[in-house]
Amino acid sequence: MGKPNKSLMGLDLKVVLMLSVALNVVLISKVLYQEDEDQENKISMVCLDTGSSSSYVSTRDAHVSRSRTPFDTTTSGTDVLNGGDGDSGVIIDLDHGNPTMYEEYWKQMGDKTTIVIPGWQFISYFSDVKNVCWFLEPEFAKAAIRLHNLIGNAVTEDHYIVVGTGSSQLYQAVLYALAPTDSPEPMSVVSAAPFYSSYPLMTDYLKSGIHRWAGDAYNFCTDEPYIELVTSPNNPDGSIRLAVAKGDKRILVHDLAYYWPQYTPITHRADEDIMLFTISKSTGHAGTRIGWALVRDPKIAKKMTKFIEINTIGVSKDSQLRAARILQTVSDDYDSIGNVKEDERFFEYSYSVMVKRWKELRAVVDKSEKFSLPKFTPDTCTFSGQTFEPQPAFAWLKCEEETVEDCENFFRSHNILTRGGKHFGVSPKYVRISMLDSNNKFKIFTERLLRLSSMKS
Amino acid sequence: MGKPNKSLMGLDLKVVLMLSVALNVVLISKVLYQEDEDQENKISMVCLDTGSSSSYVSTRDAHVSRSRTPFDTTTSGTDVLNGGDGDSGVIIDLDHGNPTMYEEYWKQMGDKTTIVIPGWQFISYFSDVKNVCWFLEPEFAKAAIRLHNLIGNAVTEDHYIVVGTGSSQLYQAVLYALAPTDSPEPMSVVSAAPFYSSYPLMTDYLKSGIHRWAGDAYNFCTDEPYIELVTSPNNPDGSIRLAVAKGDKRILVHDLAYYWPQYTPITHRADEDIMLFTISKSTGHAGTRIGWALVRDPKIAKKMTKFIEINTIGVSKDSQLRAARILQTVSDDYDSIGNVKEDERFFEYSYSVMVKRWKELRAVVDKSEKFSLPKFTPDTCTFSGQTFEPQPAFAWLKCEEETVEDCENFFRSHNILTRGGKHFGVSPKYVRISMLDSNNKFKIFTERLLRLSSMKS
Repeated sequence: MGKPNKSLMGLDLKVVLMLSVALNVVLISKVLYQEDEDQENKISMVCLDTGSSSSYVSTRDAHVSRSRTPFDTTTSGTDVLNGGDGDSGVIIDLDHGNPTMYEEYWKQMGDKTTIVIPGWQFISYFSDVKNVCWFLEPEFAKAAIRLHNLIGNAVTEDHYIVVGTGSSQLYQAVLYALAPTDSPEPMSVVSAAPFYSSYPLMTDYLKSGIHRWAGDAYNFCTDEPYIELVTSPNNPDGSIRLAVAKGDKRILVHDLAYYWPQYTPITHRADEDIMLFTISKSTGHAGTRIGWALVRDPKIAKKMTKFIEINTIGVSKDSQLRAARILQTVSDDYDSIGNVKEDERFFEYSYSVMVKRWKELRAVVDKSEKFSLPKFTPDTCTFSGQTFEPQPAFAWLKCEEETVEDCENFFRSHNILTRGGKHFGVSPKYVRISMLDSNNKFKIFTERLLRLSSMKS
Repeated sequence: MGKPNKSLMGLDLKVVLMLSVALNVVLISKVLYQEDEDQENKISMVCLDTGSSSSYVSTRDAHVSRSRTPFDTTTSGTDVLNGGDGDSGVIIDLDHGNPTMYEEYWKQMGDKTTIVIPGWQFISYFSDVKNVCWFLEPEFAKAAIRLHNLIGNAVTEDHYIVVGTGSSQLYQAVLYALAPTDSPEPMSVVSAAPFYSSYPLMTDYLKSGIHRWAGDAYNFCTDEPYIELVTSPNNPDGSIRLAVAKGDKRILVHDLAYYWPQYTPITHRADEDIMLFTISKSTGHAGTRIGWALVRDPKIAKKMTKFIEINTIGVSKDSQLRAARILQTVSDDYDSIGNVKEDERFFEYSYSVMVKRWKELRAVVDKSEKFSLPKFTPDTCTFSGQTFEPQPAFAWLKCEEETVEDCENFFRSHNILTRGGKHFGVSPKYVRISMLDSNNKFKIFTERLLRLSSMKS
């Protein structure tokens, strides 16, 4: 703002700026790349500095330039040939959480989730002009509320539903809704490391003047209002999370994409101000691009709606109808309206697949001194009545050997694509591995991991 | 960047900044609200100033705060009761270009455009990992190319297709792809007034540090590279547009949403570097949220794809499949694969509706001294062989009476919702009126306009 300032206290401003940026890049690199050997016992750091505006800018730039392309199609989605691991040269892509694991289930379900949309229907931009979220299909809203009530994972009463083109769009809509546009500085956004690798990029890719990524919530101090993302179960490590932030200036956003009974025991009905969900992780329909937010404050719901209006003029009706049909079918099967056996109902099926996969993975890792996995505490699920340990959508694996500094590189050299710890704000000794891919890929992965475990370093 | 500078040449920087901003707001308000009585003869202004950064910021802030909510649901989508205009208290909403006019046609077409999607298909994030745009359904790409070849409105050879969640998302993707992220100043984006009312808001709603709205292309001068949007036929006024910008530092983006033979004679196959299209205006399926870009440079196509990946992790498969089916059906009917009479083919039908509506509207306006419409020159359409005047999707109507300073307010006081000239960067004596709404609403509108024309001032 204003014309460039050529001098400040006799110094050339460009030089001051360069020095400031350089200093901050060094500091932030140190913070971000630090070996994070003791995450579970991590405590909030003492607040030594309230942070200058320059440090924020550097954080952002460091993150944007470093942020991994989540969908790098040079190798993305590469299919494993023929099955079996005779050819260890075959690349297995377990980088994304592409939920192809569920395909088999939906195939077995036949036509129950098939949708038919005539060409003349759902032509208008509008779905329900009386709703705060005017592009929300009432059918979809009904199906989402019904499923939450069935599972008991979230309170829908006194919450508005905002539908989004996946939960990524909703994440950006939340930031837009919460960050004031008239503030001189962008609002800081933090999350406890390891945090979802796309948060920094989604926050900063347009170098917004209203919000900015400020990194690990544990290392963050400010006197200004800020946003903390609480992802629970957490992506990448599956841990159950509470907010790290203290004080009345924090605004919490709960990303509950994985709070479903195939991944973790449902222990309570979440009743937060802003809760995000997505169909890609609940039922596995990633190609449909539908997420939804439960939002207590109508003003925030309205401003999120405004973001989606400007960003994409609403959310595709076709996708909302498809998502509605899928969620309805899942609920029907529990209400005995459907016609499936108990163990063929969606959450029983998906739960049992996750049990099997985690059992197989732990069997390999527990025998190995090279790798380790997080330890979880069992809990009783109010939905299923069963007591079990979390069995997350991702394995958060650590390369224990001293010689392996970068676990992602290590796996890549063995043709397994994973996402390394540095993308999640922690040590490169960790990788995130999708547990949701096809049976075939998962089988090859565990076989290859077993071979790697027994190989000499 | 850097710590706040407390002083500059002995003056408090905040005071300097406030003065600068205030001065610029005044200047820009003058430019934006100026009475634009002679747009057709407008010529590029002499370049007196290369623009300071502060003026850009003011432009942006003025626009963002002034920008009309395109979908204000307090009155949006309000339906006309019962038909007939016995009750002139009924609100007619012709603010949006909601293409409900086409619903009747698609109803007549029956099941030909119906899609059926089984629950287990299209689950993956990926559509075609070998394509630059990895979430583009090959079926949709094929249908879009086939239709362009049939109509002859755009060159598809040597262009990449990028699919978007409507063309709004593609517009934002283009800005992201073209504006360098490492530049100290955001790249300017301009369009000749009257320009599409959403451009300023879509450019500036996140106060991006990489691009900023810089207003009317006619009034813009810079030595830096910048983006000019060329919307042809233009929204709101239907005029055929060429780029205003001169010199090798301009980057052109062609928004060709309305370059279809029901709205304007197709005179040539557009062969621009970046061309945007949308299904909401071509076939009227606004609820499906599908647009597409034809992009010559693979690097730009790749960066647009990246934007859509970060923004919404791709584009809904369901919507792409539905759009593909609709475009295929339209083409089939011309290839005699379909089973409709010639005058029932989509572009004949929609052309004849537009002919009828424009005839009715002009019959009312031509008799009136209160209102006027743009005059167009007829041209021969290479697609239909017919010679006709443009018959745009919007009527760009001017209130001619001296006593009416704000035409939008005038119509609102008579329960007709339109979008006023100030939202398009020109005089409030103009309004944009949708020509694509239902027959019923259009009938009531013309009847009411006739009554207003004969009313004493």
